[in-house]
Amino acid sequence: MGSVDAERGLIRQVVRDLPGYQPVDSLEAVARETGHTVHALIKLDANENLYGPSPRVLEALTRPDDYHLYPDASQQAARQALAGYTGADPDRIIVGNGSDELIDLLLLATVEPGDEVIVPVPTFGVYLDRPPLFGATVRVVPRRDDFDLDLDQIEAAIGERTKLVFVASPNNPTGNLVSAQQLVRLLRTGVLVVLDEAYFEFAGRTLLPLSREFENLVVLRTFSKWAGLAGLRIGYGIFPPALAEAIWRVKQPFNVNTLALRAVEAALADLSVQMQKVIRIRLERGRLFRGLRRLDLLQPYPSRGNFILCRVARGDAHDLHRRLLARGILVRKYDDPLLRQHLRITVGLPEHTDRVLQALREIADEVA
Amino acid sequence: MGSVDAERGLIRQVVRDLPGYQPVDSLEAVARETGHTVHALIKLDANENLYGPSPRVLEALTRPDDYHLYPDASQQAARQALAGYTGADPDRIIVGNGSDELIDLLLLATVEPGDEVIVPVPTFGVYLDRPPLFGATVRVVPRRDDFDLDLDQIEAAIGERTKLVFVASPNNPTGNLVSAQQLVRLLRTGVLVVLDEAYFEFAGRTLLPLSREFENLVVLRTFSKWAGLAGLRIGYGIFPPALAEAIWRVKQPFNVNTLALRAVEAALADLSVQMQKVIRIRLERGRLFRGLRRLDLLQPYPSRGNFILCRVARGDAHDLHRRLLARGILVRKYDDPLLRQHLRITVGLPEHTDRVLQALREIADEVA
Repeated sequence: MGSVDAERGLIRQVVRDLPGYQPVDSLEAVARETGHTVHALIKLDANENLYGPSPRVLEALTRPDDYHLYPDASQQAARQALAGYTGADPDRIIVGNGSDELIDLLLLATVEPGDEVIVPVPTFGVYLDRPPLFGATVRVVPRRDDFDLDLDQIEAAIGERTKLVFVASPNNPTGNLVSAQQLVRLLRTGVLVVLDEAYFEFAGRTLLPLSREFENLVVLRTFSKWAGLAGLRIGYGIFPPALAEAIWRVKQPFNVNTLALRAVEAALADLSVQMQKVIRIRLERGRLFRGLRRLDLLQPYPSRGNFILCRVARGDAHDLHRRLLARGILVRKYDDPLLRQHLRITVGLPEHTDRVLQALREIADEVA
Repeated sequence: MGSVDAERGLIRQVVRDLPGYQPVDSLEAVARETGHTVHALIKLDANENLYGPSPRVLEALTRPDDYHLYPDASQQAARQALAGYTGADPDRIIVGNGSDELIDLLLLATVEPGDEVIVPVPTFGVYLDRPPLFGATVRVVPRRDDFDLDLDQIEAAIGERTKLVFVASPNNPTGNLVSAQQLVRLLRTGVLVVLDEAYFEFAGRTLLPLSREFENLVVLRTFSKWAGLAGLRIGYGIFPPALAEAIWRVKQPFNVNTLALRAVEAALADLSVQMQKVIRIRLERGRLFRGLRRLDLLQPYPSRGNFILCRVARGDAHDLHRRLLARGILVRKYDDPLLRQHLRITVGLPEHTDRVLQALREIADEVA
């Protein structure tokens, strides 16, 4: 836009200061570059559920009688189904276009310029990237060496301008949980705690019941992982009543599309089928962990999610990433200095575990 | 949340100042209240396309092989298809979760606290509701008596802090167009003009070509109207290059779901089928207009959209709305004083025109 932008300062300084947009390659582009077909690629880079959604969800999505109408702005049926699943009051539940959107709405509802947001790191990048856009300063608090929360440091960071603390459990990418004791200590400071339980189904543990006791706890969840529906963008939050009311006010009325709302109902109506896949992934996580530990190439960290973070013990993590990619295996690498020497591997099907372990053994020989 | 909110001022003042959230009734709830079945309701209140989407779109949405994977963050195929439809460079096109989301992203990318946004009224409420959330002050500029833009007043309202002007063409709910001459005059002021062409297919006229000449023009479009896909939430914008880059930076990577992206491709691949429905709606608009004019109850305004705004000439608009609702016919009423005595009626199928005209004739007799 050149002149207009220059003359009028059209684009905000905080946006100009962001690193330039890095296009994410489509799977087709990755396939082309690596000389594989899309279907031959093994996609272990985004913590997707490679078993896919339940057949009942797919069936529910093939009844297209009302795509021409706006979605139900009240999210009535979906929130009722989520109330059954979570045990929470439907009035406290709001569905988002992925929990990404709910994070934005939380910031939009609460942050005044100059407020602060506390983020224990390493963790999910969205907690770091979004607050500055809404006028908040991010205060990062490093986790301990075992990736456990450093509560003394978090408490020390809480000040007059602190609006909220983002905590994921299981944490992405480190895979560890927050204990009830830790969360209670944090809640007792009075600060709003956003507990992201995107992966809790793979841990079999939730701290949601604490939201009955503490009015400063928000719990975020998603259908992208356990339900195998990352493509449909379904997140939900359980909010304290006053905050729920504020989120409804700042939310666009038709933020979640008809198919996503319908998928919520269908997935929860077919819970046992989907939970069997979750159990298989939890078992496979153990097998992948043991396989990785047997290699002298990587040091895997125990995980309660559907992924395993590994420190690359020999060679360079980005080089290892490239070698896996050349074999058609996608895993997650990091530019963040805290994780520059780490890779995160999603737990897939047994055949994926076999393939990635085999590839790593071959690479271990190459770089020996 | 009571105490936490009170103690810490958790929720922003601008959010507290908003009117309390008004739940929108689901169609099921409206049916229950009025004693009709959902299918018996005639829904002429939201400018939906009652012909629905093309069969090819429905077919494309029943191929669920990858719902477990995140959507293509680059929106590659959808943007390519939109480039073909619009003639615009794909690098200037961004798809949103409805154009509602694109409006938020525009504000997020450009507005610093204290900036101003100009909105000629009456118009689509989202232009008025969203800017304050992002720190902007809205300056409303009344349209002339015939709803034409008052360019002298708009120019007078443009100041140092003006970030952008929202202009819809055809305007919702008044149905009239902005002329090329008017838009050029506005663009020559140098201010960023957001031209919302949500309904342009029903007008058969676009001012998009001006975006090649002016680097301060954004054009917003949607698949909710012509394509019959309101339930899928598909908006897109054609942005000046520097602003496109900024929108990519502030946009969450997975804002549009897999099904919506696929529907873009399928709808544009089946354009002629869908455009026949658009033509039928344009013809029906003429018939509805003539029918409404014949009643002494309403004064309809000529419209280039798929809706007709009517001033209620006899009786009270909200009372008339209620009487139509009791007959299972939903039209749009307004609380805004500018439109308090108006109703907006969506152009549906011929049978809908017959039904609404018949109901209005009956009501005219009742209130005579």
